[in-house]
Amino acid sequence: MKAIVKTKRTKGMELINVPIAQLGLRDVLIKVTLASICGTDVHIYDWTHWARNRLTPPRIIGHEFVGIVEDIGNEVTHVKIGDRVSAESHISCGHCYQCRNGYSEVCRNLKLLGVDYDGALSEYLVLPEHVLWKNDPNIPDKWATMQEPFGNAIDTVMAEDVSAKTVLILGAGPIGLFATGIARASGASLIIVSDPNNYRLAISKKMGAHMALNPQKKDITPLILEATNNNGVDVVLEFSGNNQALNQGLQTITPGGRISILGIYEKRVSIDLNKEVIFKKIRIYGITGRKVFSSWYKTSSFLSSGIVNPDPILTHRFPLKNYERGMKLMREGKCGKVILDV
Amino acid sequence: MKAIVKTKRTKGMELINVPIAQLGLRDVLIKVTLASICGTDVHIYDWTHWARNRLTPPRIIGHEFVGIVEDIGNEVTHVKIGDRVSAESHISCGHCYQCRNGYSEVCRNLKLLGVDYDGALSEYLVLPEHVLWKNDPNIPDKWATMQEPFGNAIDTVMAEDVSAKTVLILGAGPIGLFATGIARASGASLIIVSDPNNYRLAISKKMGAHMALNPQKKDITPLILEATNNNGVDVVLEFSGNNQALNQGLQTITPGGRISILGIYEKRVSIDLNKEVIFKKIRIYGITGRKVFSSWYKTSSFLSSGIVNPDPILTHRFPLKNYERGMKLMREGKCGKVILDV
Amino acid sequence: MKAIVKTKRTKGMELINVPIAQLGLRDVLIKVTLASICGTDVHIYDWTHWARNRLTPPRIIGHEFVGIVEDIGNEVTHVKIGDRVSAESHISCGHCYQCRNGYSEVCRNLKLLGVDYDGALSEYLVLPEHVLWKNDPNIPDKWATMQEPFGNAIDTVMAEDVSAKTVLILGAGPIGLFATGIARASGASLIIVSDPNNYRLAISKKMGAHMALNPQKKDITPLILEATNNNGVDVVLEFSGNNQALNQGLQTITPGGRISILGIYEKRVSIDLNKEVIFKKIRIYGITGRKVFSSWYKTSSFLSSGIVNPDPILTHRFPLKNYERGMKLMREGKCGKVILDV
Amino acid sequence: MKAIVKTKRTKGMELINVPIAQLGLRDVLIKVTLASICGTDVHIYDWTHWARNRLTPPRIIGHEFVGIVEDIGNEVTHVKIGDRVSAESHISCGHCYQCRNGYSEVCRNLKLLGVDYDGALSEYLVLPEHVLWKNDPNIPDKWATMQEPFGNAIDTVMAEDVSAKTVLILGAGPIGLFATGIARASGASLIIVSDPNNYRLAISKKMGAHMALNPQKKDITPLILEATNNNGVDVVLEFSGNNQALNQGLQTITPGGRISILGIYEKRVSIDLNKEVIFKKIRIYGITGRKVFSSWYKTSSFLSSGIVNPDPILTHRFPLKNYERGMKLMREGKCGKVILDV
Repeated sequence: MKAIVKTKRTKGMELINVPIAQLGLRDVLIKVTLASICGTDVHIYDWTHWARNRLTPPRIIGHEFVGIVEDIGNEVTHVKIGDRVSAESHISCGHCYQCRNGYSEVCRNLKLLGVDYDGALSEYLVLPEHVLWKNDPNIPDKWATMQEPFGNAIDTVMAEDVSAKTVLILGAGPIGLFATGIARASGASLIIVSDPNNYRLAISKKMGAHMALNPQKKDITPLILEATNNNGVDVVLEFSGNNQALNQGLQTITPGGRISILGIYEKRVSIDLNKEVIFKKIRIYGITGRKVFSSWYKTSSFLSSGIVNPDPILTHRFPLKNYERGMKLMREGKCGKVILDV
Repeated sequence: MKAIVKTKRTKGMELINVPIAQLGLRDVLIKVTLASICGTDVHIYDWTHWARNRLTPPRIIGHEFVGIVEDIGNEVTHVKIGDRVSAESHISCGHCYQCRNGYSEVCRNLKLLGVDYDGALSEYLVLPEHVLWKNDPNIPDKWATMQEPFGNAIDTVMAEDVSAKTVLILGAGPIGLFATGIARASGASLIIVSDPNNYRLAISKKMGAHMALNPQKKDITPLILEATNNNGVDVVLEFSGNNQALNQGLQTITPGGRISILGIYEKRVSIDLNKEVIFKKIRIYGITGRKVFSSWYKTSSFLSSGIVNPDPILTHRFPLKNYERGMKLMREGKCGKVILDV
Repeated sequence: MKAIVKTKRTKGMELINVPIAQLGLRDVLIKVTLASICGTDVHIYDWTHWARNRLTPPRIIGHEFVGIVEDIGNEVTHVKIGDRVSAESHISCGHCYQCRNGYSEVCRNLKLLGVDYDGALSEYLVLPEHVLWKNDPNIPDKWATMQEPFGNAIDTVMAEDVSAKTVLILGAGPIGLFATGIARASGASLIIVSDPNNYRLAISKKMGAHMALNPQKKDITPLILEATNNNGVDVVLEFSGNNQALNQGLQTITPGGRISILGIYEKRVSIDLNKEVIFKKIRIYGITGRKVFSSWYKTSSFLSSGIVNPDPILTHRFPLKNYERGMKLMREGKCGKVILDV
Repeated sequence: MKAIVKTKRTKGMELINVPIAQLGLRDVLIKVTLASICGTDVHIYDWTHWARNRLTPPRIIGHEFVGIVEDIGNEVTHVKIGDRVSAESHISCGHCYQCRNGYSEVCRNLKLLGVDYDGALSEYLVLPEHVLWKNDPNIPDKWATMQEPFGNAIDTVMAEDVSAKTVLILGAGPIGLFATGIARASGASLIIVSDPNNYRLAISKKMGAHMALNPQKKDITPLILEATNNNGVDVVLEFSGNNQALNQGLQTITPGGRISILGIYEKRVSIDLNKEVIFKKIRIYGITGRKVFSSWYKTSSFLSSGIVNPDPILTHRFPLKNYERGMKLMREGKCGKVILDV
């Protein structure tokens, strides 16, 4: 089968022919229909510091997809041939302290699809049954493939209720844009999105942002204070991975408020913990992964009911072979989510 | 001044002239602009069992209003003449175990406006500063007057998050209808309203209900199960005060779900606690009053931003003198909220 | 092997020889060391209304035990021969809406050990790996066998924090007594236990009750109010399954407080929902099962550290063949927990 | 009256005679019995960077005390002459967004007793009624005076439940030591205290620490991992204000755990946010002040019931005039809490 493979410990990837993985007793063989590209995949292509320390080639990459079950192992009980599925990309062990306490998203033996485990940018994919999600028939393939990052946004927004609250979203990449739609659908009374990329700010308006601010054009702090009766925002959602943006978030959060942080930083961050967190009694939520599968239920619920329509985010769709074109757009910030027909 | 007064221990009320109350050091004199009628007021008119045991005539009734501050006591610090205000109707003591633990809505020495304290269906009203709420300029008078019952709906809906959840609303009186709008604005993925009154069911559709069911026409249980993949609903909001409706709610709630109960029952209720609550691990929230003032902030936020538009509920508006016409419509269930020009 | 079997649809049980169950790929064979008797087992013996409607003979009964792993199926990965284990008695499917939302304790396809599945009052037991719990080496067998009901008490007490709060415990059977120890260990500032059985009240004092009241001797309500500055208790834990006790609990709970209910009632209950729940803004938690496995971690933590010492509750220990003697003591209320050497 | 006054914008204080403040309508005059010294008072004496930027002399310092009401203003309603009181030191406005949302501890117009408002290290003190707390008769004066910092510890420990959890406490000053007693009383299964001061570590053992570690003697990380089955701790409570300690806390917290931070840092902190917070899905609670008055109820409950006995922390007691001796001991870390007879 064709697959996009990180073949060497250097920049680049290859679209090559590889054998389909073997099917274990509890495994499922899936023919991939559509896949989407994540920033992680670009990091692996670019062979960044993180990628070098994390991944051992050869590896088929990719972890966002939708496909059809073609075969099942003998011990598979709840998935059947013909099911249309996607998958939780965090493959947890089910036996560690975290898994057995309801925190499988931070399993101590976590394997990441497309990083530790052969991934979804390929014609076929073999996965253990327990990570599979059967897609709601009302969700089209183009939406089903991006439920995984949508679930990241769900966890970031919903760490606490946003209903009737003011929200600042830092970073308007695909997950920040999903979060904008989710916050709007969940009753946030004011949603301010900040991003230096005007292309993405324009999408954020389509997703429901009341204000879309470019922090490189003007100081956003006074604008945020003015829009909130000088109280600051109740909620900050940080997707940018930028220390300066993080500080802006902490400065403009109202005392007693909360911040959820999903963005990944280049290096250690510097924070004025006294002034911005302690004296203001802020709650900070580190966010990773998705609650398995409660985040998927919420994702599915929003998409199947049409309460959130992510179409403005799905800006590009290419055949699999043109994956490098998608990655180029992502590096340039000239896209929302890029989908690949497999 | 003119006021609607419960003058005698018998059915009825009178619109008569009475003196304006004296202004204490920390009190505020308000000229009422608009008031609205609550079911409680009808109970007092009809001199029901509850009213007889609770209220001592003479008493000016009414607790939902908007008005303008005309005068302030010498120790009033944060309200000034000309402010447009409404009020929390639960006048708490500020000193009991409940008040000092953040539960002033269940203060042990609670006084109710229009029941224990002269009320708002009158030209003027004197209230202690600490119960006043300054209205957002974006909220028109007709909405401002009904923030108090809107806040009841806020507390009922928001006892836990409803975002991406399925919700059954039992009872489509004004508070159930506000709750429908609030649940829809807060991202509930499916809202089913049940009420025997078709007039009110029609309003519920305008407020965002996905399904509006009349339980006297057909058995709603199979319809609810069908609409929820046989899981039942995640959330039940009970406003009807009807034991049978309560049981239907408990039967159709999914295991692990929650129910909030605001409706008042004619007598003790009978519940299959084993089957419907314990074995299903349900959480039940008794709801009364509003969180002072966090529920008001949420109410104001939804109304000033237009996220919830309660116009379909505001069905009738009369001059004060026609209050009995409003009460008649309420008894007959042929209205949403009735507003009175004072 | 020897096992206690419900053989016929009539009162009674038999200690007979039966074959050991077959070992599936993901199953584990356990040689039982100690088992303990639950009230459920007595119901099955007595062939009560509940038992008749729930269980189909023949069935090996019992679900509280500790034992040693003797053999494992080929697909078992985390349990090995020689491990000392107990088990979660709620055998969940892992695939329903509840299981996939973190509520496996109310799985829609739940099988109960010793009811739907051959149980633990027998020399050997075969169970799927996923319900097994490896026991902490610091916990002696006599304590390990009763972790399952201890976990019920954990969930009842810990539905919300009890630290620095006043607690009323209704019903001093083994689970109520475990709860007494747990509440004391968790910092409850006042623990009042109510039970008509003086034998059990005496044990409750050993477990940390500050007051042990017999509601058949005197009206407990004024005593509770006096002990709480007339506020009532912050928390009620209801284990009695008695409607009158439930009402006493609701009457004496302070406004804004919470009640957890684990007790099972003979029939529907009658509640003054207006006065005792709604106007007091009470939270009610239906409790069943244990959170798998977070309740087990807490149980293990309390027992292995010795923070809770349940010895006063472990009143009787017999050889397996004398199980009817234990059941007789349980019917008479003349025991705490009865343990059987297998 | 005699009072300890920060008279000049330089190092030092003076015990001098000053007039008693005037009594407003809602104020209360208190004769101070006992007061205690807080680290803040030492900062003011030493005229540190923080003090220089925060306080304007002259100012009577001190905010921890117990005393007797000697006189009341005409509008005071719930406090009477002869009452034995202490006070919440955060004097909130009652009208800002924070106050009206139940976050008066982070009031936007907060005045601190002994910093913005004349304080308690003096013979008499005038305070508004609304900050007063009537002391439980079972709490002796020596404990009553330190309820304010005890309440800080309450909020830090109880941001989430600690029952049956493992806890790391960083910093064994008086508040860290109170927290040790509170965590032990609340059922923490393992309490590890880390502090470079052996004098204070010895007190921590008396307060219930299972392990007392000196991080300057050996690397505490492997010891913490070993004591927790390699899981790390469930809960970190950070009182040290030391960036290195904070990092140790974040490194040893188990994925999915939480940290509460009360310690104040000399400058901005540096954190590995990706590795220690995001990928581990940690919750961080900034802690300041006390919930008014729910933290006081909990404090009172623990002290009046004797569940926490803080005597090991109350190491020194001097007459008021010897306050500098107490401050010297505090700078040297050779004390727990220092009390002054006024």
